[in-house]
Amino acid sequence: MSKALKLYYDLMSQPSRALWIFLEKTKIPYERCLVNLGKDSQINLAETVAIIRYLAREYRVPDHWYPADSRQRARVDEYLEWQHHNTRAMCAIYFQYMWLRPRMFGKKVDPSRAEQYKAQMESCLDFIEREFLGGGSRFIVGEEISFADLLAACEIEQPKMAGYDPCAGRPKLTEWMARVRDATNPYYDQAHKLVYKIAPETVPKPKL
Amino acid sequence: MSKALKLYYDLMSQPSRALWIFLEKTKIPYERCLVNLGKDSQINLAETVAIIRYLAREYRVPDHWYPADSRQRARVDEYLEWQHHNTRAMCAIYFQYMWLRPRMFGKKVDPSRAEQYKAQMESCLDFIEREFLGGGSRFIVGEEISFADLLAACEIEQPKMAGYDPCAGRPKLTEWMARVRDATNPYYDQAHKLVYKIAPETVPKPKL
Repeated sequence: MSKALKLYYDLMSQPSRALWIFLEKTKIPYERCLVNLGKDSQINLAETVAIIRYLAREYRVPDHWYPADSRQRARVDEYLEWQHHNTRAMCAIYFQYMWLRPRMFGKKVDPSRAEQYKAQMESCLDFIEREFLGGGSRFIVGEEISFADLLAACEIEQPKMAGYDPCAGRPKLTEWMARVRDATNPYYDQAHKLVYKIAPETVPKPKL
Repeated sequence: MSKALKLYYDLMSQPSRALWIFLEKTKIPYERCLVNLGKDSQINLAETVAIIRYLAREYRVPDHWYPADSRQRARVDEYLEWQHHNTRAMCAIYFQYMWLRPRMFGKKVDPSRAEQYKAQMESCLDFIEREFLGGGSRFIVGEEISFADLLAACEIEQPKMAGYDPCAGRPKLTEWMARVRDATNPYYDQAHKLVYKIAPETVPKPKL
């Protein structure tokens, strides 16, 4: 493919952050096209997961991001498909309901609905703690970081802005989040600067 | 991979049907493990899209199902990611709310909620008519059938059981559905036997 790769991104968006970190970390050359998704609603970001797969085919990226080994790849794929209705949906809904919607549209938070969204998100985070991280490996699939980890971590950062600490009471998730950050810094922290800034002091966050 | 491929499936489930049709059509040897998802809720079907990708790597299946060409593959992937929150979610929610929930749990249908679910589904079907099928090619990506078409068609069959005709007023969708059926019969009709049987007479359906 030509070098004219352009990334239209907004670091307020979780999948946008995952893609941006990935491009920076793998040194794939691209043109930065910063957009404001809140204002530029006509921009079509297409599907992040499909874009990541395409980049892994077209550029020499280290194998661990999307393993060539068929069984390992199937396990990465399993997470990538699963997350749409789970990590992606649950963390984003909670953030939007608790933080974005009141600020953008002046809507009130209904406590019983808030409780419901929180419970859904917690059940998803508990599932990750138990199933995806319960096997004792360092990352979701094996000992090295893959797309699955990066996408997951970026989603799980999001509710921090609404004052929710996803790591509290989840020791495996806590350690794994730190590993994902270590493996992708300084880009991880750069991408999450606004998240850390908006998250209240009650949520543990790195001192930048 | 070994020959001990087992498919746990229930033809009442749309992704289950897509996978079953694919295995039959491509003659991949497998062991049929019929389950009743309504009763066997502990069965973990994992993620259909990840399974299909794995099968395409491990078995010699004709290229058109999941093209090796990187740009074509990216377009198939784009649909496969998009569908989770669109075709898959919208058609399934409508079907469950209108048909399954009243029958399984004796729940009443709230007309305003029914209208909302219908509008969401229709906006998704209109998007498919306009965007995915609007370019004049025979299938979602190019002139041959891919996973994207099969998965999409199986989802779009589902609301027929609730008396909704997805083809009405959508000429491109109508012709494309007929093409997907032609390209995968006799398995398509076998997989949808129950759908055709349950769908009321007001919904056009093949005479078997």
